[in-house]
Amino acid sequence: MLSFAVEKTDSLARLGRLELPHGTVNTPCFMPVGTQGTVKTLTPEEVAEAGAEIIVCNTYHLYLRPGHKRVQAAGGLSKFMGWNRPILTDSGGFQVYSLASMTRVTDEGAQFQSHVDGSRHMFTPELVVGVQEAFGSDIAMCLDECPPYPVSRPVAEAAATRTSLWAERCSAARQPGTNLFAIVQGATYPDLREQSAKTLVALDLPGYAIGGLCLGEPSDVTYDMVGRVAALLPVDRPRYLMGAGYPEDIIAAVRLGVDMFDCVLPTRNGRTGTAFTNAGRVVIRNARYADDAASLDDACDCYACRTFSRAYLRHLFMVGEALGPKLLTLHNVRFFQRLMLGIRTAIELGTFESWSSGFLARYQTNTEPAQPE
Amino acid sequence: MLSFAVEKTDSLARLGRLELPHGTVNTPCFMPVGTQGTVKTLTPEEVAEAGAEIIVCNTYHLYLRPGHKRVQAAGGLSKFMGWNRPILTDSGGFQVYSLASMTRVTDEGAQFQSHVDGSRHMFTPELVVGVQEAFGSDIAMCLDECPPYPVSRPVAEAAATRTSLWAERCSAARQPGTNLFAIVQGATYPDLREQSAKTLVALDLPGYAIGGLCLGEPSDVTYDMVGRVAALLPVDRPRYLMGAGYPEDIIAAVRLGVDMFDCVLPTRNGRTGTAFTNAGRVVIRNARYADDAASLDDACDCYACRTFSRAYLRHLFMVGEALGPKLLTLHNVRFFQRLMLGIRTAIELGTFESWSSGFLARYQTNTEPAQPE
Repeated sequence: MLSFAVEKTDSLARLGRLELPHGTVNTPCFMPVGTQGTVKTLTPEEVAEAGAEIIVCNTYHLYLRPGHKRVQAAGGLSKFMGWNRPILTDSGGFQVYSLASMTRVTDEGAQFQSHVDGSRHMFTPELVVGVQEAFGSDIAMCLDECPPYPVSRPVAEAAATRTSLWAERCSAARQPGTNLFAIVQGATYPDLREQSAKTLVALDLPGYAIGGLCLGEPSDVTYDMVGRVAALLPVDRPRYLMGAGYPEDIIAAVRLGVDMFDCVLPTRNGRTGTAFTNAGRVVIRNARYADDAASLDDACDCYACRTFSRAYLRHLFMVGEALGPKLLTLHNVRFFQRLMLGIRTAIELGTFESWSSGFLARYQTNTEPAQPE
Repeated sequence: MLSFAVEKTDSLARLGRLELPHGTVNTPCFMPVGTQGTVKTLTPEEVAEAGAEIIVCNTYHLYLRPGHKRVQAAGGLSKFMGWNRPILTDSGGFQVYSLASMTRVTDEGAQFQSHVDGSRHMFTPELVVGVQEAFGSDIAMCLDECPPYPVSRPVAEAAATRTSLWAERCSAARQPGTNLFAIVQGATYPDLREQSAKTLVALDLPGYAIGGLCLGEPSDVTYDMVGRVAALLPVDRPRYLMGAGYPEDIIAAVRLGVDMFDCVLPTRNGRTGTAFTNAGRVVIRNARYADDAASLDDACDCYACRTFSRAYLRHLFMVGEALGPKLLTLHNVRFFQRLMLGIRTAIELGTFESWSSGFLARYQTNTEPAQPE
């Protein structure tokens, strides 16, 4: 139900094609996040027009509301949400640790109380695979244990061991045709990362993710871990770095051989008024834009950039109109798709290094800090 | 700068064509409200695709933020907000009375403190005309005094007299080419309404509005006032009933010879989860829709109805996703444009009475109460 082909490489960077039940994904790809079955503020038509070929939805949220059986009865998540392209669902583990309360994790699974109504639930490896199968996800993720940063070695080691145990149970529980990815853990300990990768690779799954990074650790540590893990993953399987969203991080990880990315950055920053542009970040509420007739990003072809001035976008934010967050989200989602298109074209041409340098030089021109996230 | 032609009548109902600087408007028309220079949650492209040919913006809000000089410097309101069709701006009077604080009204004008920052301002008839000219409005409204309902006769009489005085000053202050409409007041007193209409008609303005109705008075009183006033207005000028939004009120007023309507009902109700449909109102949060695979309105051709089930729309509202209010707004705006298209077609065919009966019989099938507004 999945096929992946690396079509070209430029040093370690890979140009690939990932065939999934709901369509084809060109990699390296960026997956906008549609937590609750919607990429916040956008219609699925707008997400597709922005160039996204796959999105990420959230098992924890959709299991609680509207419930996986309801989604299944509606014909699966793609049909339910009007997105007729691939969907990757995460396992929900991350949200159990970050959003739910009274969480108790044992080898059996993760017990938690819903952040919505306090109801009690337990995510086992078997349940989260079944839930994602009910969604009809193109890619399902194994339940993992993701410790925060920083974390002690014993805690990191226990989490990585449990993650491997759970991956084995997820693998055993899946239906034929379920595209299950395992998640490499091990925090910032090189030997734990390498051990985790080796154990999971032995399961011979159709794809692998690197989890537990981009949690606040220094970038050089992130890149060190990504590089070590990527080197151990099978070359013929897609590699997914979870939660990496800054353009500089995406470029660095592509350089290390990563194929897939997701992050709330474009959508969350869009809603709070920060735009990613060819010339760096723009905080649209800044007074300097009050009479600025220019578009948000002169290199962008999105509807917001084709239609509106910075002055108007700023006005929308200043008066609290919903169209403001929506237009900046639309732009940011398009920005990340254009970034990935630039990356893919550069790998195709064998010019990834020089393209990256040029992109980052322009992008780092404008030093406005992002809004707090 | 304005031409209006009644092309056909069916009893008192009129089919018309209103030519304005930014385009043509087929009447009877419904104008979605874009208070702060945006029809809430929608792009101007979506508003146009829904069939709207003219929208209403708000002088009070746009005068305060971003300011009329800033809008003028940006090339006018149409250009600023990316809506290249006609705009009618109200005078701001209604908001001064309902939103601002410390309002003091004299014959000179209305003093008020901004609801945004408490700053002090004064709207005179001359200022509000100048502000609307700075916006480049296709139709500008005279400053009026709009008393609440119910109101005593002396207060109603004083407000109507002042409104006439201000209309004369607005008329004298306008630039050549400004399409200024006067507003008939007089509350629910037939003789005051008739006196107000006659005085304003003597100013020979390009159009007339009926204000101070749809404020909670019984429907038969509304229709009685509208009928009396419409009978006194020149047949060759457009007639605009301000604030009427319920389909039954629009139909009743068209029957009395009204050409133009505006109301926040489709947008506000859309945001709070109530949809207007061919079979009546639908309160989408209702549990009965949790597994409903049908579209919101089987007679509707909007993007929301073409793409999503009631179950999905309900999910969006239950989890607080912005796409929900946006999709219901989109549908409601389209619903009102389809209503007006139905009305115009029926007048064209000389079947307005039978069409209205059929529409209302279907529309009143479903008795779900609207959400509180």
